[in-house]
Amino acid sequence: MTERTLATDTTKKIGEKVTLEGWVYNRRDHGKLIFIDLLDRSGLIQLVCGENASDLNVQDVIAVEGEVKERGEKNINPNIPTGKVELKVSKINVLASAQELPFDITKENLEVELPTLLDYRPLTLRHPKVKAIFKVQETVVDSFRKTLKGLDFTEFQAPTIVPTATEGGAEIFSIDYYGKKAYLGQSPQLYKQIMVGAYERVFTVTKAYRAEPSETTRHLSEYVSLDCEMGFISSWEDLMDTAQEVVLGIFDGVKKDAGDKLAIFGADIPKAKTPFPRLKLSEVQEIIFKEFGRDARGEPDLSPEDEKDICAWSAKEHGSEMVFVTHFPTKKRPFYAYPDPEDPELTLSFDLLGRGLEWVTGGQRIHEYEKLVSNIKKWGNDPKDFELYLQTFKYGMPPHGGFAIGAERTTMQILGLANIREASLFPRDMKRVDRRL
Amino acid sequence: MTERTLATDTTKKIGEKVTLEGWVYNRRDHGKLIFIDLLDRSGLIQLVCGENASDLNVQDVIAVEGEVKERGEKNINPNIPTGKVELKVSKINVLASAQELPFDITKENLEVELPTLLDYRPLTLRHPKVKAIFKVQETVVDSFRKTLKGLDFTEFQAPTIVPTATEGGAEIFSIDYYGKKAYLGQSPQLYKQIMVGAYERVFTVTKAYRAEPSETTRHLSEYVSLDCEMGFISSWEDLMDTAQEVVLGIFDGVKKDAGDKLAIFGADIPKAKTPFPRLKLSEVQEIIFKEFGRDARGEPDLSPEDEKDICAWSAKEHGSEMVFVTHFPTKKRPFYAYPDPEDPELTLSFDLLGRGLEWVTGGQRIHEYEKLVSNIKKWGNDPKDFELYLQTFKYGMPPHGGFAIGAERTTMQILGLANIREASLFPRDMKRVDRRL
Repeated sequence: MTERTLATDTTKKIGEKVTLEGWVYNRRDHGKLIFIDLLDRSGLIQLVCGENASDLNVQDVIAVEGEVKERGEKNINPNIPTGKVELKVSKINVLASAQELPFDITKENLEVELPTLLDYRPLTLRHPKVKAIFKVQETVVDSFRKTLKGLDFTEFQAPTIVPTATEGGAEIFSIDYYGKKAYLGQSPQLYKQIMVGAYERVFTVTKAYRAEPSETTRHLSEYVSLDCEMGFISSWEDLMDTAQEVVLGIFDGVKKDAGDKLAIFGADIPKAKTPFPRLKLSEVQEIIFKEFGRDARGEPDLSPEDEKDICAWSAKEHGSEMVFVTHFPTKKRPFYAYPDPEDPELTLSFDLLGRGLEWVTGGQRIHEYEKLVSNIKKWGNDPKDFELYLQTFKYGMPPHGGFAIGAERTTMQILGLANIREASLFPRDMKRVDRRL
Repeated sequence: MTERTLATDTTKKIGEKVTLEGWVYNRRDHGKLIFIDLLDRSGLIQLVCGENASDLNVQDVIAVEGEVKERGEKNINPNIPTGKVELKVSKINVLASAQELPFDITKENLEVELPTLLDYRPLTLRHPKVKAIFKVQETVVDSFRKTLKGLDFTEFQAPTIVPTATEGGAEIFSIDYYGKKAYLGQSPQLYKQIMVGAYERVFTVTKAYRAEPSETTRHLSEYVSLDCEMGFISSWEDLMDTAQEVVLGIFDGVKKDAGDKLAIFGADIPKAKTPFPRLKLSEVQEIIFKEFGRDARGEPDLSPEDEKDICAWSAKEHGSEMVFVTHFPTKKRPFYAYPDPEDPELTLSFDLLGRGLEWVTGGQRIHEYEKLVSNIKKWGNDPKDFELYLQTFKYGMPPHGGFAIGAERTTMQILGLANIREASLFPRDMKRVDRRL
């Protein structure tokens, strides 16, 4: 056979003899004519076959030779980019046969429950709608990277094996490390701060791990953390400005590079008026009380219901589905969170909420050595366990801060998925590592 | 103070009053004049201070205000981009003071032993030569990504927690996973193959883990694996073509974006004549025997000495420091390696060697379901443990293969570093996870 042509390139090769390779996505029998939808990485194309295709099954891998023909005006399929052409097949070569499928994957919506979706991940991933999710996720990660590179940030590779629990001891996985104990990092936080000491502005795309003892629709035991940190901030508000720029960059990237994927889901990126509103936690609680009649004033955090309501309120009042909530209490934030000089019970921290869920969490960090040592002790930790980290501050560290974005959550929220597991290729949780535990 | 200017932007602001922020990299006292080299993310600039700088120490973090002045002709420093100017400082604001340093970091070469280099990582990273290593590494990763995106590959996020040991059971870390056992992935191999079933061409930048029971200068317990995999290959030689393109892309990227970093090390990218020579393992052993008098014919692999010699030979005979070695024995490769149809004792596999060390390892994989099941058993594993993976082949998989590149090794080999730990930000090994164990 001749050199391979991609499906979508056939529109430029009308009348030519070409070889296509891909999967049998669907077949329709019309007497002696068999129509095959062939799928390759570029998309779908209709093959017109004779009896030579009678043994072909969905998901068989084939190479076919034939002539690209224009379809008659009334046979044009406006739903696919190759809808104006088809391949009149003269030769079929089966590269691999598929066994009988456990369910129909040719429907527009894959009608399987979540456990089945994940039990058959290699197969369900081949469904266009499922496949689209991870193209959107790729764009989310690319856009994060692109915005920060444009702002002079350095990308680094954070380690995931760590010597100590950094953000609370319970929800951490331990490793048998050459007969000793080590842990899986809950975030690259300490490392990105160390990196600021050398490169000022850094980011990393890395795995983070949480041994969540419960199952929710929005937590994973292993997730992709988009983490950045910047030094020489003039105010902690710089961090929100940067977070906003990064999130808007993600929105633009997805619209531009994955607009067709959004369309498959009937999804649109969130409405976002800039600057995103910035409300103190206490202000949010006042609004919730006044507008929704729930009194959570004085609570140290927002409930999932509060998060939904304040997003709805922000969309209505400010035309922005994205809203910053700031000034979380010191006791609910990690030891490195910077206390508000005007009220040390609160921190210079923020969450960015969108469509009822937290997307970004960040804040200014303590850069003064003595203050940090004292906080490590106050949080019940031993400064000795943080010796490497503490060097950063011992040897001169500028005012700095940063934030983290969950790649799966962002994907889930943009596409309006019901469960974060749909936005993770191979989700790990209490009950599953590939197979059910 | 006014808005911050970066050090290298001062050359465009001669005569202006500016604010700079950064670290005191060095100080030189000349009576009442004190010269400070200020370092920020853009580079160095000389500050001319008076007695107001007398308390400043190396690594203090400062903001300074002053006027940018041209230096006199004979005071120009040709070694730094800002060498034609200096800042006449009127105001100094100390943002953070550094404690006394454990060693001098202002020397051109940081004269500390490896354990000290790592024990003081937050500080040693601030040395320009150390800092340069990870800018080169950033470029290596960027270039890998760029070449593959250009070839229509999809980037995905591989999981690192895995249910089973995939490539041999001994050198794997186990995790306490909600009271059950899970492992740290030795490579994203099985996942990237699953992904080929949906996206044809994929790559990932991920962590891989090896519980190496010994300490060498070229192994890490956690490393950054640049992994790719492609379907619909017409021959396994396609894989070497792609590997070559990726490696040349890395060379070009480093030359273009990190040429100044190469210069700091007096390093140059390897000589590479294309196509890189492709020699069978048995041919290499004949050459080693004939040219170097060592008889390792029939051995299943090359010794470190063989690898050095064949690279030297290739450089001399073919003008290429990069050389492919192919056809490794089946028994030394994983269960998924594709047997050579002409001799099933050998596999369609390759290593790319350069400057005496393996850079890339890859090959074609078995895509036939029955063959794979039979091999899993032959390798002493239970197909049940590979149920998810096996679906990929049960439901139609094209001929495919791929390769993996170690980011740290590539960095090490390009810069000519003596130990791979120098090319890992926070190297993990038997004896160290941040601190010594």
